[in-house]
Amino acid sequence: MALSLGLYVITCRDPGHGVDHLDIARAALRGGADAIQLRDKEAGGGELLRVSREVVRLARSSGSACLILVNDRVDVALACGADGVHLGQEDLPADSARRILGVGKVLGVSAGTVEEALAARDGGADYLGVGPVFATPTKPDAGEPIGIEGLRKIREAVDLPIVAIGGINAENAALVLRAGADGIAVISAVSAAEDMNEAVGRLRRIVDAHRKER
Amino acid sequence: MALSLGLYVITCRDPGHGVDHLDIARAALRGGADAIQLRDKEAGGGELLRVSREVVRLARSSGSACLILVNDRVDVALACGADGVHLGQEDLPADSARRILGVGKVLGVSAGTVEEALAARDGGADYLGVGPVFATPTKPDAGEPIGIEGLRKIREAVDLPIVAIGGINAENAALVLRAGADGIAVISAVSAAEDMNEAVGRLRRIVDAHRKER
Repeated sequence: MALSLGLYVITCRDPGHGVDHLDIARAALRGGADAIQLRDKEAGGGELLRVSREVVRLARSSGSACLILVNDRVDVALACGADGVHLGQEDLPADSARRILGVGKVLGVSAGTVEEALAARDGGADYLGVGPVFATPTKPDAGEPIGIEGLRKIREAVDLPIVAIGGINAENAALVLRAGADGIAVISAVSAAEDMNEAVGRLRRIVDAHRKER
Repeated sequence: MALSLGLYVITCRDPGHGVDHLDIARAALRGGADAIQLRDKEAGGGELLRVSREVVRLARSSGSACLILVNDRVDVALACGADGVHLGQEDLPADSARRILGVGKVLGVSAGTVEEALAARDGGADYLGVGPVFATPTKPDAGEPIGIEGLRKIREAVDLPIVAIGGINAENAALVLRAGADGIAVISAVSAAEDMNEAVGRLRRIVDAHRKER
């Protein structure tokens, strides 16, 4: 499966200016994101399913090829007809998730070290979310930033598509792409933006410009 | 499937006297519980999977027919080879869970009203966890107790096996069984007991005595 994950937008619960998962997803779809990850560690399975179903419906009716991925909950991803799931290091291990998901779904795994990256690959991951590259206010518990150097090390060790994550914004996006990331994953760079459509558009242009550059 | 759910023990994270999920599960298996539900809303999927796998292994190697059920997480239930899953009203809806689980697994659903009970039945539930019958310190957010009267109403409305839950202990167990419950689900009556083996044994005898009585 050739995954295109240049611009990967992660939703969050209540980023604080009256927007919700659906608003963030709408902006991502409009601005041409390649993937949307629905992330809500506080929501029960029922609530996450309702939101995820709505976003899957929006994506399909938009005619976009944007992948819809659910964070953590393999069961919710299956129940809402998402394209796949994204797992953190505290979630189900990749191999267990792959067995439940089947081969037709996309499986992404977070990795902050070469060891985690290799384990995810061996467990059946289709792509890696590598980070946190920079410090991030959205996930203060995400661990020490691995920096551009940490990203490079994982890039050299693993052939899977890599989406860089953690404090990535329009200012540093080109830097992580040049360091070998295939895409950028953003949370607050979109969800906290006053004009989310403009924020997605700007990131899209940076990703596209980098592709031409290569 | 003829479900036998007379004594149903629910584990919990850290009941406060140095015991954990595995200790509670061991006492439940030793004392002849019919079902063990692994419940840990704080654990990540990875941790819950590790604990659940261990309890499934214990149960199978004990030769007991005790059912192992996982609370909330259908994906974890599938990944650990549990017998099924138990869902609260905030979790995945029964029909969505049933589609993922397949027909061979046990699906239980919490219900506090006749409406919830009928919806669970129509969604494919195999049994109901009905309550909270009495006030309970273990789940202070569980809602107003429905009392013996509330239990009776659901008993009259639905043919599924009913496990009564919420503040049930050796003192009131016979009362809820006489009101029509097929079994009793206990959390603190076991997990908070100084001698968990003794607590399980005592509840087992009450359930068995009621069966002879009928």
